[in-house]
Amino acid sequence: MITKPTLLLDKDKCLQNVEEMCLKAQKNGVDFCPHFKTHQSLEIGSWFKRFDVNKIAVSSLAMAEYFSSEWDDITVAFPINILEIETINRLAGKIRLNLLVESTEAARILNQHLENEVGFFIKIDTGYHRTGIASNGYKEIDAILEVASESDRLEFKGFLTHAGHSYNCRSKEEVLDIHNENAALLGVLKYRYNDRLPGLIISVGDTPTCSIAEDFSMFDEIRPGNFVFYDLSQEQIGACSFDQIAVALACPIVAIHEERNEIVIYGGGIHFSKERLEDENSGTIFGRVAENKGNAWGNVIPKMFVKGLSQEHGIVSVPDSRLGNYKIGDILMILPVHSCLTANLTGSYTTIGGETIGRFRF
Amino acid sequence: MITKPTLLLDKDKCLQNVEEMCLKAQKNGVDFCPHFKTHQSLEIGSWFKRFDVNKIAVSSLAMAEYFSSEWDDITVAFPINILEIETINRLAGKIRLNLLVESTEAARILNQHLENEVGFFIKIDTGYHRTGIASNGYKEIDAILEVASESDRLEFKGFLTHAGHSYNCRSKEEVLDIHNENAALLGVLKYRYNDRLPGLIISVGDTPTCSIAEDFSMFDEIRPGNFVFYDLSQEQIGACSFDQIAVALACPIVAIHEERNEIVIYGGGIHFSKERLEDENSGTIFGRVAENKGNAWGNVIPKMFVKGLSQEHGIVSVPDSRLGNYKIGDILMILPVHSCLTANLTGSYTTIGGETIGRFRF
Repeated sequence: MITKPTLLLDKDKCLQNVEEMCLKAQKNGVDFCPHFKTHQSLEIGSWFKRFDVNKIAVSSLAMAEYFSSEWDDITVAFPINILEIETINRLAGKIRLNLLVESTEAARILNQHLENEVGFFIKIDTGYHRTGIASNGYKEIDAILEVASESDRLEFKGFLTHAGHSYNCRSKEEVLDIHNENAALLGVLKYRYNDRLPGLIISVGDTPTCSIAEDFSMFDEIRPGNFVFYDLSQEQIGACSFDQIAVALACPIVAIHEERNEIVIYGGGIHFSKERLEDENSGTIFGRVAENKGNAWGNVIPKMFVKGLSQEHGIVSVPDSRLGNYKIGDILMILPVHSCLTANLTGSYTTIGGETIGRFRF
Repeated sequence: MITKPTLLLDKDKCLQNVEEMCLKAQKNGVDFCPHFKTHQSLEIGSWFKRFDVNKIAVSSLAMAEYFSSEWDDITVAFPINILEIETINRLAGKIRLNLLVESTEAARILNQHLENEVGFFIKIDTGYHRTGIASNGYKEIDAILEVASESDRLEFKGFLTHAGHSYNCRSKEEVLDIHNENAALLGVLKYRYNDRLPGLIISVGDTPTCSIAEDFSMFDEIRPGNFVFYDLSQEQIGACSFDQIAVALACPIVAIHEERNEIVIYGGGIHFSKERLEDENSGTIFGRVAENKGNAWGNVIPKMFVKGLSQEHGIVSVPDSRLGNYKIGDILMILPVHSCLTANLTGSYTTIGGETIGRFRF
């Protein structure tokens, strides 16, 4: 019985999301290197093995250590943190570890301190402007390759990008434009370096482009992560439907304020995170309410959404017509704006069948 | 040695914040019932005992259970979640537990299911409009008191409010206006009910009013929480100075992008939360950078702030004049926008002396 905020997982939807992305990768003949930062769970990770997935991406060395008990080939898709060189050396002695390098400085420090062989990708910026070297930054790229060539412990794997600017899109067409631009920029890079460095991998990774695009011929590897659960942000972008969202936070109703059409739930910033989205009708929202179907959830209820979050409170806006349906002690099923952050804030998943699934906690 | 995002605690500043608020309560002759949802730590909680504090507030029953090993009088300052009645009964058998009631429905369910005596406050809304009964909602208040009078296990403690609208203030004058309005509204309530219910407690609780106001003669108890650490939100309100902020997240630099005046740190939404504030010069910010003084921090650096957060990345805007000062592997000291949420995301505190202080994890 649910008595406090509980992250529910619809395992069937999740498995369906996993299967679709695995089959898309297979159909396109690209390697699938799913990003496990979203679910952070060995058990959910194991569901990929039935599709012969044998490499993964994570966002920290701590997460790589957690997954290293079951995975041999792990890419830490985050600019290398040289302060963790001891962890890098320990992990690289155990599994095939791949790192992200975007400066000669980082490459030089690795050269000096690596005790075991690691793979490395050069991080390329194709327009997101968060991290990486511009795709035409040949001078910087060559300089890194030059430094790395001095070490027999640094093996160049290829070029990796995260087209995170796809998160600003609000239609499939906009996402496909980014996908195609990404392919063009990385295609030039591959053409330029492939003779010299045969077998180099072009790795791309955001959920919007990987969900919407069908043609991956310019790439060798895809690394989406969020698709495993999807969320309201992905729905707004056009990367999924509400029906594909595989997690919901079940939240008890603790107060009802009919005079202002509000329900107060036990479920706040420490459960959802404070990720928000701007809805053209409702303004800033922090979650949407779906029908409660016992321990599962159904359709999204129109005009019912989380309008504010405090540390443990959520304020839900409720249409007049539905106010009479609720009483304190009922459970509202809330679809999260950003499932990665919501999952990160909960210690485990409860499947709609009542099973508990554990996850990494740092 | 700091190798990854680490929440540093300046114990001297924290003790100073604790002492100032304890002395203010003593000077005003009001009970001090500090809210422990900010630090969530038995050890930090113990620092209040030297000032004869003997009751606390928390924001969940889980947190009440954690603190019940050392505290006998705990108010769960959150509308009662009736689904946790088993926990309530267990805790009320062990300590003096006080709950918040704001409907006859909740009072009736307590009447039916309570196995031990609990205290209860009626939650009053003095303008924040999140939870509670309007301060002139006498009919609803009387109805709750009537239901409660039928039980010998429900002891009325008084009226409790959280003037959370003080968080929207941007000057001490605005905060004092709210404080004075709060006093007026609650004064009327006290005058109306005090003859009938002698000894009733008027409890107020937000950090801005408790930090700025000097006159608490209309109240019996104060319950601020955030003041223990303060943060950038409180500084913006005028409730503290930068110097009083007692926590900073130490974050390794993983990349530097001179061409756009940005530093990328290891430290993102899973460390800070995504709480933001609007700065009139810099726009939306997620943290400010303070000078690195070894394992401690110094003054806030002008025009240097966290402009964006992903799951594990932070993007720091850096003025031209300072770009040359940093290299990868250096540590930036970041003051958080909302210390409660940042502390909630970390498993422990590291004092600037290197001591580790544990905390509750739910």
